[in-house]
Amino acid sequence: MKVAVLMGSISDVDIVKKTVKVLEEFGVECEVKVISAHRTPFEAIEFAKTAEENGTEIIIAAAGKAAHLAGVLAGVSILPVIGLPIKSSTMDGLDSLLSVVQMPKGVPVATVAINGAENAGILAVQMLSIKYEDLKEKLKDYKKKMAREVKEMDEEVVNKLD
Amino acid sequence: MKVAVLMGSISDVDIVKKTVKVLEEFGVECEVKVISAHRTPFEAIEFAKTAEENGTEIIIAAAGKAAHLAGVLAGVSILPVIGLPIKSSTMDGLDSLLSVVQMPKGVPVATVAINGAENAGILAVQMLSIKYEDLKEKLKDYKKKMAREVKEMDEEVVNKLD
Amino acid sequence: MKVAVLMGSISDVDIVKKTVKVLEEFGVECEVKVISAHRTPFEAIEFAKTAEENGTEIIIAAAGKAAHLAGVLAGVSILPVIGLPIKSSTMDGLDSLLSVVQMPKGVPVATVAINGAENAGILAVQMLSIKYEDLKEKLKDYKKKMAREVKEMDEEVVNKLD
Amino acid sequence: MKVAVLMGSISDVDIVKKTVKVLEEFGVECEVKVISAHRTPFEAIEFAKTAEENGTEIIIAAAGKAAHLAGVLAGVSILPVIGLPIKSSTMDGLDSLLSVVQMPKGVPVATVAINGAENAGILAVQMLSIKYEDLKEKLKDYKKKMAREVKEMDEEVVNKLD
Amino acid sequence: MKVAVLMGSISDVDIVKKTVKVLEEFGVECEVKVISAHRTPFEAIEFAKTAEENGTEIIIAAAGKAAHLAGVLAGVSILPVIGLPIKSSTMDGLDSLLSVVQMPKGVPVATVAINGAENAGILAVQMLSIKYEDLKEKLKDYKKKMAREVKEMDEEVVNKLD
Amino acid sequence: MKVAVLMGSISDVDIVKKTVKVLEEFGVECEVKVISAHRTPFEAIEFAKTAEENGTEIIIAAAGKAAHLAGVLAGVSILPVIGLPIKSSTMDGLDSLLSVVQMPKGVPVATVAINGAENAGILAVQMLSIKYEDLKEKLKDYKKKMAREVKEMDEEVVNKLD
Amino acid sequence: MKVAVLMGSISDVDIVKKTVKVLEEFGVECEVKVISAHRTPFEAIEFAKTAEENGTEIIIAAAGKAAHLAGVLAGVSILPVIGLPIKSSTMDGLDSLLSVVQMPKGVPVATVAINGAENAGILAVQMLSIKYEDLKEKLKDYKKKMAREVKEMDEEVVNKLD
Amino acid sequence: MKVAVLMGSISDVDIVKKTVKVLEEFGVECEVKVISAHRTPFEAIEFAKTAEENGTEIIIAAAGKAAHLAGVLAGVSILPVIGLPIKSSTMDGLDSLLSVVQMPKGVPVATVAINGAENAGILAVQMLSIKYEDLKEKLKDYKKKMAREVKEMDEEVVNKLD
Repeated sequence: MKVAVLMGSISDVDIVKKTVKVLEEFGVECEVKVISAHRTPFEAIEFAKTAEENGTEIIIAAAGKAAHLAGVLAGVSILPVIGLPIKSSTMDGLDSLLSVVQMPKGVPVATVAINGAENAGILAVQMLSIKYEDLKEKLKDYKKKMAREVKEMDEEVVNKLD
Repeated sequence: MKVAVLMGSISDVDIVKKTVKVLEEFGVECEVKVISAHRTPFEAIEFAKTAEENGTEIIIAAAGKAAHLAGVLAGVSILPVIGLPIKSSTMDGLDSLLSVVQMPKGVPVATVAINGAENAGILAVQMLSIKYEDLKEKLKDYKKKMAREVKEMDEEVVNKLD
Repeated sequence: MKVAVLMGSISDVDIVKKTVKVLEEFGVECEVKVISAHRTPFEAIEFAKTAEENGTEIIIAAAGKAAHLAGVLAGVSILPVIGLPIKSSTMDGLDSLLSVVQMPKGVPVATVAINGAENAGILAVQMLSIKYEDLKEKLKDYKKKMAREVKEMDEEVVNKLD
Repeated sequence: MKVAVLMGSISDVDIVKKTVKVLEEFGVECEVKVISAHRTPFEAIEFAKTAEENGTEIIIAAAGKAAHLAGVLAGVSILPVIGLPIKSSTMDGLDSLLSVVQMPKGVPVATVAINGAENAGILAVQMLSIKYEDLKEKLKDYKKKMAREVKEMDEEVVNKLD
Repeated sequence: MKVAVLMGSISDVDIVKKTVKVLEEFGVECEVKVISAHRTPFEAIEFAKTAEENGTEIIIAAAGKAAHLAGVLAGVSILPVIGLPIKSSTMDGLDSLLSVVQMPKGVPVATVAINGAENAGILAVQMLSIKYEDLKEKLKDYKKKMAREVKEMDEEVVNKLD
Repeated sequence: MKVAVLMGSISDVDIVKKTVKVLEEFGVECEVKVISAHRTPFEAIEFAKTAEENGTEIIIAAAGKAAHLAGVLAGVSILPVIGLPIKSSTMDGLDSLLSVVQMPKGVPVATVAINGAENAGILAVQMLSIKYEDLKEKLKDYKKKMAREVKEMDEEVVNKLD
Repeated sequence: MKVAVLMGSISDVDIVKKTVKVLEEFGVECEVKVISAHRTPFEAIEFAKTAEENGTEIIIAAAGKAAHLAGVLAGVSILPVIGLPIKSSTMDGLDSLLSVVQMPKGVPVATVAINGAENAGILAVQMLSIKYEDLKEKLKDYKKKMAREVKEMDEEVVNKLD
Repeated sequence: MKVAVLMGSISDVDIVKKTVKVLEEFGVECEVKVISAHRTPFEAIEFAKTAEENGTEIIIAAAGKAAHLAGVLAGVSILPVIGLPIKSSTMDGLDSLLSVVQMPKGVPVATVAINGAENAGILAVQMLSIKYEDLKEKLKDYKKKMAREVKEMDEEVVNKLD
């Protein structure tokens, strides 16, 4: 089980590390790289071209502004590509979101919420669980844990009102 | 290989049938249903709860406006949920897109473009190909076919200029 | 007179407590809970299903981002559901607003302003006052108090100009 | 049971008549008027001031563009005011929506979707049902009818795919 | 020469005082008031009804969110009404702008930029200068002063580059 | 009483003629010109420079897309400039509106609604009425006529419901 | 003088042919191709890599939705890349515009208006005119012709008013 | 090689100095000026009229809000004009971007990202490199340097994850 987690700039690392943390919690191997569709296009293309044969099963690509990284990788590779739009200093993430999600016919990018780093990780695990059955149990546990946390919040909330 | 394709209303069927067509082309079995998160919430929940044990491996959910279907299913099931935002008569699809993609931490929806029905299908095939290796070859053929079509357009384009 | 005030996460409590405060000022009993449409969907459905028989007369639901809580509750219950869109860290609340207000035909959510917590409370009181006549007088007093406050501001404003 | 249905211009009548139809189906008496916050402000104010004593229990106000009608009525009357934003020829309804929903503290407008005329009617019925218990049964029947319609669509949908 | 400067809440005073300052610099008398279209609707209507006979020649109205103040005054009075949209804590001022500017046929509001307080003042002076010729000279001086300031900036800018 | 009505292109004439019609109804002389800030900048500047001495009292400028005409004229002339944003084939008029209304400090443009041609005319009349008292009576008649029209609609509306 | 005009799909040809027409009017040689950043990424990269040595001096790239073509070419080539955002069936061109213009530091795309095909051509001519002096005269003639056309419109406009 | 870098206000200098720095790094002479389309329109026009004969080869214009500077200069001069939209305190830069990029047919502005100051410089260098061949090598070095920086980030990123 190997997922590649790419980001367009090291400035995105604080967000992307939440993706990595989720993957590690689920025991998914994780290759983290800085690759830019615009500044290292050949590396991006090369990465996408060889990802499958290198054992990568899913690519997660995080980028902001005119965020082309996910789309470029998806143009080359047949692996599922998860797009993580990063909010930048202008336009509140709308530019990133539209650049990632509005892909033309034939080349999808599985887009998660703006800065939705954990969800990029969970989505990758869900995809892998189609093949790796034991991840299914872990995902059920994760869902239960989330439900428990909400119930704990629910017990706590009355105290927070005063 | 089974994918469930749900839509919030039969008025979405003209768009959603493009998803079904893609899945059929790739030989993926396809269960198509009209289920509404708002008008048949119990059916939606029940569907999500039993989808895995019924052999469904991926859920695709198409909905417009305040498009909650994908999110509600993703809240219940651990299967990957692909969200297909449908453009409605106001707001040009922005309401659908944001309602589908901006999911909170822990419950991702793999969102494709507004009305991006074919891409919902391709994305499902990509996810399945993690497990079903022969789909990989079909995806490569699909990519080659797309490239050929672009090259044919390229040969044709000069004639269209006059 | 009982109003349920639900929120999708305890992080919304600082806003939601203004709703609770308004309800208490009007002497309306108030049940406050953390319930998530995505992380505790069964609890959400169960709550909505039993709310009426438990004496709840109105449901207020606060949520951010792809804010499905109000819509999901409104799909199950026939009680009036007031939706309070919460501004999150991206998109300035537009995602929450559209996810809450753009409900499809047949399942309305009575939506108030982004972060408009007090107004969610007032609106609940107005709805209750259809039945509970004494709330009408309290609402008139509230309107008079607001008008007085504006007039006090008006007297004060000249001093603030220098 | 009386609901006033006001619209800012007779050009909105094709949308607003769906609200009236819903109210009539539920047996709710319905007073329909054209009143403009901008062109007949005194009538608007007078209407709001006397609505309660004239037996009106809820006001529904439909308006487009800089849609102030609902807000102005809510400023005067303590009755619940439902705002129905109408899509006009520019801005795709966003101007109407924001003008109706973004009300300041103390003066809520219960806003439904852009052009969501049926929902304005349903919401009024839900509010009335707090007092008029028999409407509750009708609302449950309405929910069942909607669910049935979705199920019929579901049976039909396979035929629509070819 | 008298201009009324109204604001919907005293929280807008820090912005509105820039309008007042401009008017005072041009020697225009200025009546500053807090009046709310929603919380003191009768005062708003009364003000608009009597403004002309009280010698007011122009009304400037500042408000945020669903900013109805300018529109309501313009509905009642025939005086020119200048609308100053105030940016509030959500939606970055877009809600205020659209609520103020998108007025229906027959009832204009002369809208300036979001938080464009000085410009509301200048615009009032320009309108008054149609009648009061000496303001024309002052406006020309103001334009010259602005040009001078830009030229001073221009001389300075090279020093700021290092 | 003379108002200049400028438009950036003759394609705007169908909208702008409504402005002219309003001005003529009020007996205001009207000079109509096609002048472009971008394609005839010298004519635009020259027009603005001489407008006042040519007896023009107000300038109305209609333009679409990156609509600079009003702003450029306002930069040169001290006359009040009314900006009429025209909806073009993309962006639904938002580009025009923001280009016209978001003027920097010191140079206001009195902006009316997107395609709000009649209102540009009314606003000009209101400004002129500060000086020309008899326009005040005409404006009051206009307001009465509008109110009458709304009342006629109100009488008619019931017939439109069936 | 050679400009490459690329488009992402032959469906863009009706818009792009206006670019070609402008270039031909200025006597600029023009290579028109359909190349997709997503469906023929290798061709796109190869084109960008060899464009300079093939004598191309400027690249114009037209694309819609998540419009990555211009950005990808600009990542590879040092030639100036002009981006022409195409309006697609959803989002009114905003997605294309933001995907093209919001490029990260170091890799600019010279963006023109949504569907601004003629301007893409003119901009290319302006860039070329830095080197090819005779284009300067043609650009001046073009400006004069535009000014003449506006003046003709100006003469005509009065006739259009009745 | 001379590029003029104009800004609408000295408050933009902190952003614009990044443009200047890039130009200096490439050995391009740079004339920096504060000129406002609205406050010094004659200077703006005069500058544009004489720029070419003064040896300027490209104009870069930075402005915010209703950002007309680039468009006005492009209306007068045949030189390529690069527009740099500046984010101001409201609307997150969307007003600036649309005011700069949405230019009408015949008068392009080569627009870069909101606050994309470095890219304005790079784009100018790319345009100049059509004529000045040695800039081509420098641009290739610049691209290599960017690629190297990304690769260094890539080596570093693993350390940032813990």
